[in-house]
Amino acid sequence: MAWGGRPVLVVSRLDDATADEVITELNRRRVPVVRLDPGDFPAAVTVNATFGGFGSAGTLVTETRTVDLDGVRSVYWRRPTPYTADLAMSEQTARWAVEEARYGLGGTLAALPGAHYVNHPWRNRDAEFKPAQLATAARCGLTVPATLITNDPDKARVFALAHRPVLYKPFRQTEYTDAGGRALTVWIEDVDPEQIDDRVRHTAHLFQRRVPKTADIRLTAVGEHLFAVRIDGSPGVDWRRHYDSLTYTPVRVPSEVAKGVRAYLDAFGLVFGAFDFGLDPDGRWHWYECNPNGQWAWFPDHITSPITAALADQLQYGGNA
Amino acid sequence: MAWGGRPVLVVSRLDDATADEVITELNRRRVPVVRLDPGDFPAAVTVNATFGGFGSAGTLVTETRTVDLDGVRSVYWRRPTPYTADLAMSEQTARWAVEEARYGLGGTLAALPGAHYVNHPWRNRDAEFKPAQLATAARCGLTVPATLITNDPDKARVFALAHRPVLYKPFRQTEYTDAGGRALTVWIEDVDPEQIDDRVRHTAHLFQRRVPKTADIRLTAVGEHLFAVRIDGSPGVDWRRHYDSLTYTPVRVPSEVAKGVRAYLDAFGLVFGAFDFGLDPDGRWHWYECNPNGQWAWFPDHITSPITAALADQLQYGGNA
Repeated sequence: MAWGGRPVLVVSRLDDATADEVITELNRRRVPVVRLDPGDFPAAVTVNATFGGFGSAGTLVTETRTVDLDGVRSVYWRRPTPYTADLAMSEQTARWAVEEARYGLGGTLAALPGAHYVNHPWRNRDAEFKPAQLATAARCGLTVPATLITNDPDKARVFALAHRPVLYKPFRQTEYTDAGGRALTVWIEDVDPEQIDDRVRHTAHLFQRRVPKTADIRLTAVGEHLFAVRIDGSPGVDWRRHYDSLTYTPVRVPSEVAKGVRAYLDAFGLVFGAFDFGLDPDGRWHWYECNPNGQWAWFPDHITSPITAALADQLQYGGNA
Repeated sequence: MAWGGRPVLVVSRLDDATADEVITELNRRRVPVVRLDPGDFPAAVTVNATFGGFGSAGTLVTETRTVDLDGVRSVYWRRPTPYTADLAMSEQTARWAVEEARYGLGGTLAALPGAHYVNHPWRNRDAEFKPAQLATAARCGLTVPATLITNDPDKARVFALAHRPVLYKPFRQTEYTDAGGRALTVWIEDVDPEQIDDRVRHTAHLFQRRVPKTADIRLTAVGEHLFAVRIDGSPGVDWRRHYDSLTYTPVRVPSEVAKGVRAYLDAFGLVFGAFDFGLDPDGRWHWYECNPNGQWAWFPDHITSPITAALADQLQYGGNA
């Protein structure tokens, strides 16, 4: 039967090139796909979820499709837009309506019976906390650069002098823009110990020894499959600032790194992870971070194709690929 | 050695009678306790957390104590106040500083090496989603009343007619107040099918068959210990509205309920849970909900004492009680 069987639910916003890649592949395989943006709730999405003695059931209705909640094969959790409320509501009522939507619809989407999640949204959320990332990576045997989290300028200065060169990394990317609409991204930057002053007291800051690297490595993990790419050509510490000048070369993953990555994914309950490493002159991989919902569609086709196929396998076969 | 050994970290606000009970008992046992409210960060709390090849370490400094992060025996996660920023900051900067604090300090507190969490804050958070509670309770063999989550008034009306009497329950308690400072609590209420109108379309709503109950039961679970109390004297559906007229009687937990509760706690990774049940005329326990961070200090002393002791055991012996 063409287009038959249980659908894959793709939870994302409309403009998500990464989700588009995977959906195109699932379409090619004739696996049914339903795309859902929780930000369209309640105006253009209707949920009817029933619970009780016979387990969970019900439907999710989008503008074009109806899905049985107990018939979802797998969920590809990407980048949904935030929950919204009717503009006519007062501010307090709107905040309450958004919370009810987040707990009511969001909770229902996180508890679909029998669905395989890539990744489960609550596992993504846990895995986005950098202190937990750092502690877990070190425990899993990955090589973690010396790192300090502090709001104490004296401790920051001592660390920056002892480990220099040292980088400052924000915990979160901002989505703020300035008056002209320019994104106020906080870049990863070298820190001069002399620059560290009382402003450090205002919140938590992360300082990390800068690895003496010859290249960057992005390792994309999908279930048991690891796809590692060496990234050359970045003149600075943050290759995301220099896409135009980068070149990509697939590389083999050293077995101790593969073992560490496997343990890391298991510790957080992740199926997918985008790991960043720095490669030092001795060939050692230094772990920087793991984005549990990282982008990969910007690589050249010969690198993205096997990642797309591995993700489609996960979603099609529900983790039994 | 008196007052020796690894401290218990109690994460809560100042006015928390439930935490006070447990701290008093730990003091009596001469187990060192450090109290921390993340809402006091960064003004009155300093964090210095280090990560790298030798694992995680560092200190947490409150106004009165210094704690080694790798020396915390266990964490009692109660009711911290929200993270705050310096009032002199612009709104955007303040929001950013609060997020950095939440991910930096919050992530550090959630990843203390070797600490036993009662409960881990991320497990609390997962377990607060009612749809996941309902799906999990039914899967664990507890008797779950027929429930509908919907934003469709027609489906709500059909459900209310088929299962009447039916209750409406909010997903979240609001913390909002009206102009006069009165709390705008959304109570659990009986629903007349005629009342259901297009306002249901504004967000997600939970409707549940009202159990024909003769009494309420609160079951407080602490590790392997279950403390069940029958609550008589509530004239309405929500006994929280009638504290003054209630009487409490400890009761035995039927073995199939004990098994279900055990499975439920394991499914969410909880050590503690406050379960609410309705007792029907046939003596059957109908599961209503589980608050992973519920209050219990308001019971009479003979009921709270063994709960206090069980919690102190968990915190003192790190889950090896």
